[in-house]
Amino acid sequence: MNKEKKKNVSKLKIIPLGGLEQIGMNITAFEYEDSIIVVDCGLAFPEGDMLGIDLVIPDVTYLKENIDRVKGFVITHGHEDHIGALPYVLRDVNVPIYATKLTMGIIESKLKEHEDKIKKCKRKVVKFGQSINLGQFRVEFIKTNHSIVDAAALAIFSPAGVVVHTGDFKVDYTPVYGDSIDLERFATLGKKGVLALLCDSTNAERPGFTPSEKTVGRTFETIFSEHKNTRIVIATFASNVDRVQQIINAAHYYGRKVVVEGRSMVNIIDIAQQLHRISIPENTLIDVESLKKYPAEKTVIITTGSQGESMAALSRMANGTHKKVSIGPNDTVIFSSNPIPGNEKAVTKIINELLLKGADVIFQDAHVSGHACQEEIKLIYSLVQPKYAIPVHGEYKHLMAQAKIAGELGIEKKNTLILRSGDVLEIDEDSAKVTGKVPCQSIYVDGLGVGDVGNSVLRDRQHLSESGVVVATIVVDKEFNYLLSGPEINTRGFVYEKESEELLLEAKKELSRALNNAFDKNVSDWGKLKGIMKDTLADFFWKKNKRRPVIVPIISEV
Amino acid sequence: MNKEKKKNVSKLKIIPLGGLEQIGMNITAFEYEDSIIVVDCGLAFPEGDMLGIDLVIPDVTYLKENIDRVKGFVITHGHEDHIGALPYVLRDVNVPIYATKLTMGIIESKLKEHEDKIKKCKRKVVKFGQSINLGQFRVEFIKTNHSIVDAAALAIFSPAGVVVHTGDFKVDYTPVYGDSIDLERFATLGKKGVLALLCDSTNAERPGFTPSEKTVGRTFETIFSEHKNTRIVIATFASNVDRVQQIINAAHYYGRKVVVEGRSMVNIIDIAQQLHRISIPENTLIDVESLKKYPAEKTVIITTGSQGESMAALSRMANGTHKKVSIGPNDTVIFSSNPIPGNEKAVTKIINELLLKGADVIFQDAHVSGHACQEEIKLIYSLVQPKYAIPVHGEYKHLMAQAKIAGELGIEKKNTLILRSGDVLEIDEDSAKVTGKVPCQSIYVDGLGVGDVGNSVLRDRQHLSESGVVVATIVVDKEFNYLLSGPEINTRGFVYEKESEELLLEAKKELSRALNNAFDKNVSDWGKLKGIMKDTLADFFWKKNKRRPVIVPIISEV
Repeated sequence: MNKEKKKNVSKLKIIPLGGLEQIGMNITAFEYEDSIIVVDCGLAFPEGDMLGIDLVIPDVTYLKENIDRVKGFVITHGHEDHIGALPYVLRDVNVPIYATKLTMGIIESKLKEHEDKIKKCKRKVVKFGQSINLGQFRVEFIKTNHSIVDAAALAIFSPAGVVVHTGDFKVDYTPVYGDSIDLERFATLGKKGVLALLCDSTNAERPGFTPSEKTVGRTFETIFSEHKNTRIVIATFASNVDRVQQIINAAHYYGRKVVVEGRSMVNIIDIAQQLHRISIPENTLIDVESLKKYPAEKTVIITTGSQGESMAALSRMANGTHKKVSIGPNDTVIFSSNPIPGNEKAVTKIINELLLKGADVIFQDAHVSGHACQEEIKLIYSLVQPKYAIPVHGEYKHLMAQAKIAGELGIEKKNTLILRSGDVLEIDEDSAKVTGKVPCQSIYVDGLGVGDVGNSVLRDRQHLSESGVVVATIVVDKEFNYLLSGPEINTRGFVYEKESEELLLEAKKELSRALNNAFDKNVSDWGKLKGIMKDTLADFFWKKNKRRPVIVPIISEV
Repeated sequence: MNKEKKKNVSKLKIIPLGGLEQIGMNITAFEYEDSIIVVDCGLAFPEGDMLGIDLVIPDVTYLKENIDRVKGFVITHGHEDHIGALPYVLRDVNVPIYATKLTMGIIESKLKEHEDKIKKCKRKVVKFGQSINLGQFRVEFIKTNHSIVDAAALAIFSPAGVVVHTGDFKVDYTPVYGDSIDLERFATLGKKGVLALLCDSTNAERPGFTPSEKTVGRTFETIFSEHKNTRIVIATFASNVDRVQQIINAAHYYGRKVVVEGRSMVNIIDIAQQLHRISIPENTLIDVESLKKYPAEKTVIITTGSQGESMAALSRMANGTHKKVSIGPNDTVIFSSNPIPGNEKAVTKIINELLLKGADVIFQDAHVSGHACQEEIKLIYSLVQPKYAIPVHGEYKHLMAQAKIAGELGIEKKNTLILRSGDVLEIDEDSAKVTGKVPCQSIYVDGLGVGDVGNSVLRDRQHLSESGVVVATIVVDKEFNYLLSGPEINTRGFVYEKESEELLLEAKKELSRALNNAFDKNVSDWGKLKGIMKDTLADFFWKKNKRRPVIVPIISEV
């Protein structure tokens, strides 16, 4: 093939549908001519202003519109922000799923809960080092380390070049389960030539190395040896199977029985056991009902709720509403976690509650991150030697921090690409540029509703949350000459109605005046009348108490 | 006086009306026989679940009920969490105020905004070292250091003994304005015998010493010297006059003009200038309109908004809604602050926005705390040598951390008292014990309303915020035999009405069925009918979309 011909091959398109500008909702499409593959399909947890929203999932309009070209989902690991949207997205984009063993185990369990809504699609477990062919793509799974077992990076081979996607990763030379990250493979790929590196930015602001997961095991050993006379309660992330393994190891060593509490924790440990990703000595696990059969100092409770989630097991233990476990001075509670940004106050609240109950609470130094710090990021860049750097997984400030690192390692500024969700990047050896946009609005899941709550509804919820609602009702005759009944005023979340009788009475009078005035002028248009009701009450309450409740004017006609 | 007689003196009562279990709302009554004095009168900012609330102020029922014994407010310093409730509390508890110069300046300015609602009360500026007599109490103001100028500790002399209250403090050997903390005075008091120490717990979890405010000045010098070609924007706390002084010093040295932005910042700098607590070289301050007359690299903007407050100047600059200042690649923005717990995400949001606009953002290492770390707390305990330790200012975990320190310094466990707001502690040389409770509910301020929004209203707001509101209206004849009109259904914050027409139509049908059924059974009680309307819709919507909107049933009768 001569050079001229080579120039004629198409460009690769990289289209992040989420995961930039935010932590979570990772999903990126790779497109080459007639082939599209999708890396990950994650959800995001709602931001503080997304009132009442349970989950946020990506907009996959682009995939739906090109469904006949979509060859499959390739999943890097089993965290919610990488797999959580699958049960929703598969309803419309029903294509095969490729993932490593534990990842697929978690996906299967998740899809089972939604099986009435999803057609069975092909699912294939992939081993590290193995490649799968998806149209014009070949995708190789590469072993990495992360805060969940079986995490993979991907080498995506396309006619336009090789792209390496790290997924979420860290470099752990002494992992708890399985091998260390396959640095040799990154090096070999680098030597052969890598077009672009999509690398995890989560910890790109942090200097140094993330410590090995094993260091937490040593911390547990110390804590266990120093707290031989109390029960030990440890809260951590449900999916951190290695962490649970290490707690179980320490418990076993000290002859303690272990209870696992919290639905998601029980579920994942169950899957990990079936898939041999955790090894639990016989007669170590007991169920919560059996706790009372053993002396407190011979038990350990591993629980969900390390982020202060109000419905999680730890929260219920702390506030005294857990049915089986109550916390007291004979408890040592360990947070084996750091608060995720936004959860700080919720976690502190639980720590205070636990302390108030007399427990000893350890909330520092019993955790390590699952993400690469600056030196690890430099290591991967140095091995992979990509032509283009495309920082992924993080808010803008994290992406910028990685861009800075890439610059320090000699990658040209013009070859470091900070993408936005929805960007269509066209890339090959000669150039990389954003040539278009695809839809990438967040879709809100509220209860069973997917997408039936949008920004205007959220604005109403915000408004309702600040000052409540005032409902004003009138009944008019068909000719709109006079009031048959009302105005009545009902409020929720506005004022104590009992103590504000006078205010509401005055409001009614004001409203009557305005309405009679309108009738005198023969106003008979519903829209206009409602406008008058709204404005009159809005002005009145603003004047009276500087609040702006949502005002719902209702006119009934008989 | 023989020993028997000495025993007969009354005990001192210490009654915290707020400030424990939380950061903020500091207010503590000291009572000896016919005399009550009140240390501080602060507000708290609303927690995340206090929807729509602007401020939280303490319940001063106890002071109102004993108003003839209340001798005055003694204020330690001018931060909102120590003075912010005065404009509300003085309406009912109109007694003299004692404070140092800057503190009183800030109080005066605050009270001026509310002067229509408050009778003029006596206000006396006190110097460090000076004592004031308040009934059976004598109160001495002692120089300390803090993140606001003119902060004082108090030595409260009563017939039952001397209590030392540190207020918020740190030990700064090289303060920017005025003297270092008066350690000698703490030592002398300690030597004479101190009954109890009420000491700031905010940083009691942090080992070591808090660095001097001057270290931030050196950081500014470095940043200024390294950013000679851009405009510099610095966000910090409005009340940190020393910080502003140091920014102005650096600006002056580098020949930059300074703009102060944000109402509270302008206000406090103005007061500090009038009271000679800040010294600004001539021709350094310019107003925001004059910015364009100078090259960007010859200007500095000092602004509010370091906590990500959505209405503050920095936030408006970041999102492009500030009328006079827009941020671009020619700006270096410095956060001279740490996010207060709960504000992390708001601050990150602004950092991302600023980076997106191309600005260089520095958000680490340009701040020091105003509170004492563990070694400083130990220093004060060692000097004061109190019989009783009463940790104050902090959540339970902070109080516990200080209690631990007190224990390490040899204070007996039974003499370390963790109080709750509302506790009445009776204390003298012989004993200290909580003997009663006074009311201490938080009072919510929402707009002009004080106390007219309580927990039930907040529960409604919470509920509204999660799923919105559904209003169901019917008009019935006086005999309750049939519907004259309706049912109509109106919603806000529940679903997109346009896309959910079918759902709402079905709901109406369901409701009609239920109502007709009720009429058939001759149900004519409004309460019962409303109950039926509510239950019918609640069940229907839960079944349909797993949501629980607030349902407001309205019956009009003609």
